[in-house]
Amino acid sequence: MIVVMRKNATEENIDAVIKRLAEYGLKGHLSAGEERIIIGVVGAAIPPTLRGELDYFEGVQQAVPISRPYKLASREFHPYDTVVKVGELEIGGGRCVVMAGPCAVESEEQIMTTARIVREAGASMLRGGAFKPRSSPYTFRGLGEQGLKLLAQARDETGLPIITEVMTPTDVELVARYADVLQIGARNMQNYQLLEEAGRSGRPVMLKRGLSATFEEWLLSAEYIIAQGNPDVILCERGIRTFETATRNTMDINAVALAKRRTHLPVIIDPSHGTGKWYLVPPLALAGIAAGADGAIIEVHPDPDRAKSDGSQSLTPENFAVLMSQLAAVAQAVGRLVA
Amino acid sequence: MIVVMRKNATEENIDAVIKRLAEYGLKGHLSAGEERIIIGVVGAAIPPTLRGELDYFEGVQQAVPISRPYKLASREFHPYDTVVKVGELEIGGGRCVVMAGPCAVESEEQIMTTARIVREAGASMLRGGAFKPRSSPYTFRGLGEQGLKLLAQARDETGLPIITEVMTPTDVELVARYADVLQIGARNMQNYQLLEEAGRSGRPVMLKRGLSATFEEWLLSAEYIIAQGNPDVILCERGIRTFETATRNTMDINAVALAKRRTHLPVIIDPSHGTGKWYLVPPLALAGIAAGADGAIIEVHPDPDRAKSDGSQSLTPENFAVLMSQLAAVAQAVGRLVA
Amino acid sequence: MIVVMRKNATEENIDAVIKRLAEYGLKGHLSAGEERIIIGVVGAAIPPTLRGELDYFEGVQQAVPISRPYKLASREFHPYDTVVKVGELEIGGGRCVVMAGPCAVESEEQIMTTARIVREAGASMLRGGAFKPRSSPYTFRGLGEQGLKLLAQARDETGLPIITEVMTPTDVELVARYADVLQIGARNMQNYQLLEEAGRSGRPVMLKRGLSATFEEWLLSAEYIIAQGNPDVILCERGIRTFETATRNTMDINAVALAKRRTHLPVIIDPSHGTGKWYLVPPLALAGIAAGADGAIIEVHPDPDRAKSDGSQSLTPENFAVLMSQLAAVAQAVGRLVA
Amino acid sequence: MIVVMRKNATEENIDAVIKRLAEYGLKGHLSAGEERIIIGVVGAAIPPTLRGELDYFEGVQQAVPISRPYKLASREFHPYDTVVKVGELEIGGGRCVVMAGPCAVESEEQIMTTARIVREAGASMLRGGAFKPRSSPYTFRGLGEQGLKLLAQARDETGLPIITEVMTPTDVELVARYADVLQIGARNMQNYQLLEEAGRSGRPVMLKRGLSATFEEWLLSAEYIIAQGNPDVILCERGIRTFETATRNTMDINAVALAKRRTHLPVIIDPSHGTGKWYLVPPLALAGIAAGADGAIIEVHPDPDRAKSDGSQSLTPENFAVLMSQLAAVAQAVGRLVA
Repeated sequence: MIVVMRKNATEENIDAVIKRLAEYGLKGHLSAGEERIIIGVVGAAIPPTLRGELDYFEGVQQAVPISRPYKLASREFHPYDTVVKVGELEIGGGRCVVMAGPCAVESEEQIMTTARIVREAGASMLRGGAFKPRSSPYTFRGLGEQGLKLLAQARDETGLPIITEVMTPTDVELVARYADVLQIGARNMQNYQLLEEAGRSGRPVMLKRGLSATFEEWLLSAEYIIAQGNPDVILCERGIRTFETATRNTMDINAVALAKRRTHLPVIIDPSHGTGKWYLVPPLALAGIAAGADGAIIEVHPDPDRAKSDGSQSLTPENFAVLMSQLAAVAQAVGRLVA
Repeated sequence: MIVVMRKNATEENIDAVIKRLAEYGLKGHLSAGEERIIIGVVGAAIPPTLRGELDYFEGVQQAVPISRPYKLASREFHPYDTVVKVGELEIGGGRCVVMAGPCAVESEEQIMTTARIVREAGASMLRGGAFKPRSSPYTFRGLGEQGLKLLAQARDETGLPIITEVMTPTDVELVARYADVLQIGARNMQNYQLLEEAGRSGRPVMLKRGLSATFEEWLLSAEYIIAQGNPDVILCERGIRTFETATRNTMDINAVALAKRRTHLPVIIDPSHGTGKWYLVPPLALAGIAAGADGAIIEVHPDPDRAKSDGSQSLTPENFAVLMSQLAAVAQAVGRLVA
Repeated sequence: MIVVMRKNATEENIDAVIKRLAEYGLKGHLSAGEERIIIGVVGAAIPPTLRGELDYFEGVQQAVPISRPYKLASREFHPYDTVVKVGELEIGGGRCVVMAGPCAVESEEQIMTTARIVREAGASMLRGGAFKPRSSPYTFRGLGEQGLKLLAQARDETGLPIITEVMTPTDVELVARYADVLQIGARNMQNYQLLEEAGRSGRPVMLKRGLSATFEEWLLSAEYIIAQGNPDVILCERGIRTFETATRNTMDINAVALAKRRTHLPVIIDPSHGTGKWYLVPPLALAGIAAGADGAIIEVHPDPDRAKSDGSQSLTPENFAVLMSQLAAVAQAVGRLVA
Repeated sequence: MIVVMRKNATEENIDAVIKRLAEYGLKGHLSAGEERIIIGVVGAAIPPTLRGELDYFEGVQQAVPISRPYKLASREFHPYDTVVKVGELEIGGGRCVVMAGPCAVESEEQIMTTARIVREAGASMLRGGAFKPRSSPYTFRGLGEQGLKLLAQARDETGLPIITEVMTPTDVELVARYADVLQIGARNMQNYQLLEEAGRSGRPVMLKRGLSATFEEWLLSAEYIIAQGNPDVILCERGIRTFETATRNTMDINAVALAKRRTHLPVIIDPSHGTGKWYLVPPLALAGIAAGADGAIIEVHPDPDRAKSDGSQSLTPENFAVLMSQLAAVAQAVGRLVA
């Protein structure tokens, strides 16, 4: 961190800054320009709040952070790609992984049928919600543990590992008993107890970006999980909220490419939630893979117009099969294979 | 809801819509214009997902909701202002309520001093965080139960009721034991288990608007709480996230005025978080009251530049006292009194 | 500006930066911390593009601007409030100025009637569009010069000075012949030829903030006008575009308060466009004045439901008269008078 | 359009709506549901302002537009893809077109060198700014007509057609004399006089999306140009402004895919401005092509760190050559060829 003093800052002002730094075990390194003094902050651990504190000091013009506030998630400190292993499947290891299935688990027949369909089309993981966050209290919220059991049954039959959302810290143990990968939803990206509980679960965690979370906040939330000793974090870009209402959200493909540069964690795209329209799912899935994503999570429903949630963004089995072959072609064009 | 069919919709398309409506116990009322058919949906309970479902049907151009998706929070169904009683204090009852105190409870001395200062200046409730949500895992996260005890001690001495944040469902019982009003923070506005637990706590709940929550989503989250049988919900506008970075957030004063029209719930403004700069807190507090807010929540710290969090947005005791007298003048100008 | 070098920057990297600075007549002042080198940039005129250039240099971690990029509009360089004189009327001189009138000039009867009504209610300037920017090519675009003549006629009768929009550089001379104050609309905030032409017109200019313009860009656009030798610039906050759709725009009252601190220019609020709903105009007008605005511009129409544009945000004469008395009360509460 | 009346609307209210419709030559078709009356609006030309007007009527709950407000740009009225011909080059005709060159024309040597480089790498059009819009008045604004002459000279030598920006209506004739395609920049997307002048120029026009323009507003601006009798409009997505600051803008790839569905106009992506970072240009260019774009416009500079503007987002000749071969591979994967 660098503290830029105002032109008219007094010695007293400077001393106050130096003294506060010392309280945190930090050293202030003075450097006098022609116009003003700049204080370089030296020391092991700069508290994230320090910037806000110093901005408030008399005589301080600006405190400027130099390094990124996340470390464990940063490529700077961990240059090689993290590969998350789920059984024999590798996420982040060079191949593109496709996770597919219905938005919500609705019935045995629905989930078993869908599991067979997506496996046949080439998906390597099964998705499906047993606990559903819904903005209205008057909406279907999932089958709960019964849904988890049906997912496990589908795994037993198809061999596909399963990923499903966990919404509250006290459910982590339950969901982790059934799921291969825990999903943290966008609304919970800053539910810190949940992040920490997931970090202690022993399961890989897929962390969806919050609707209005900055890139940096997203990485800081990953940091919460990794800091519990769980390095197996998968990022998932699922669209951000902007002024545009022609699509449900705005997929931030910039963030996918930036993530591959700034972090070592695998990145998955979710064009179903990112667009909200089934006919935009294929082009955006292809776009994400072309931009470097390590895979995609796609909603597929055997009968989308009867889906209990998000039917309008689900692909039919036929459309999903077409998409899988297009994904293979685009992956190959950027030098990769679909897992 | 109204379902507008495409010009070229077939009888089969129309029948499919009617049939689906029937499955939900709803009736479709056909009306043939010169160019197209419109189906009015009649029935008691239209599921919130229906719109998405129907948009997906062949031959459907658009499904248009007519009424608002929240009911319990809506002024349409409940025309008179809700007055939330906290001991003898009334929130929403015509007087402007000022809640004040530090961002976080840091020590006995700090909270006791601040409590005395804010009471003397005319505040009618004491705020202070015992559990703090922080975007980075490396930051001070509050004193926990010890903080709650200190708040209770401050209440005992000053008589001020206390409001403090609860972050996770399993903490609701604990926090409700000490606090007079539970606060749900912006990051948790869509933490539905927490909303429901708070709804069952028997305590009034102040619900902060999420950083990127629409007005409608905010009201739907209030609906979650009220639906548990707890009518004592206070809305709190604390700034939204926009492209503007010159201030920490953008206070949405439009939403304050709109809330007074669309709902019967009291609305409090939080200019400390809404601006992120202490020198913008007074003008925005005055603006909110002028626009019709039922009160304000203000961060005050006896020594802002030593605050463990958010010091740069805290007022000094002197500035707070000045603000209180300005608030009284503006409240009077719009025909109200400060409680 | 400060250039922060990477930890592993070479001497060669540093020399390259110093050399580039020299090409611009700037000096680089080195300062070695324990971990990295920081280069302070010293010199009279740092080109605004320099930051982008240096960010691209090898070995550079970050180039950090220290002072604000606008000077003429900055309070730092011009501490006293600018007072814009329009005849005997002063804008920014301590009194709150109310500009009122229809969105568009529609007919002689309409503009004359409205002018009389708003003068009687206490407005001190007449607004009305003769040239209207419209997002669709199929919409009423104003009466053009005929509209300007009607405005001038209304001024002759009522004595109210007039403000009206100019949309294209070649119209500046024409509009300046009739208008007392030129208005630059939100869509044209970065139409630089128009800004410069207006800067040379000899008329005061009211500059509306662009829908997605940052605070800094707004001030830079003011700088364009002032740089032509025209110090009489009035800022106008009229709402920004955010994710929220419950209101037409989001009034950024934070920006009003910030403008009073960072610049010396007067600031006017436009709650008619800022909210898009007539019933939100009064609370937001009051909010803006409470936050420190130097006045408000309000749409008033003798028969809003027959207005050719923006009727739904226009006040009736009765509602406008009520608002004027509320404005007087709130202005007084913050120590000011309505002009 | 459909007008939904409130439950308690009176006959008088309904009559008022019908009467107003009649004034516009429209017919209101009543349809009584069980709960409320709905009025279908029938007639040739519904004025775009009608919705706002009716929303304001007593007894009206909501006026709902049914068709999109743009017609000439809509695929509904013009199902086949528009192919814009520039000499022998076709844009929108199935091949992906790459336009490349420096942000600004700086000198004869710079533009001639760049033109040769990009032609050799496979680009089919040369870009370069002669008139540059800059947010600060203190920045390089281009060489003006001298820049146009240099572009023409580069075309003479390389055979590449040229595209360059025009910023003000009075410059259209001048720029059209030199350029093969006129570019309207993002800041001018709603500069209506400029749109109309460009529509009358006889040249194809590439219309960049405004920073905060909705998809619909973008199409309405295209409508302005087409309405002047010029069908040769090319859309260009160049990033929108969101809360995210980690990249300069947020590329809206959703909008690219949506444009291919809703309009018949070709769509070009501009990843240089859309990301603001040279290392994000290749992944986003690939993403856009994978999502269905008809081409890309890319900044290339022989010496990016000496570029007079936007150097940090320009590719070196080497990086551009690599990108061209990747583009060819991805285009082929989605069944297309690079022109």
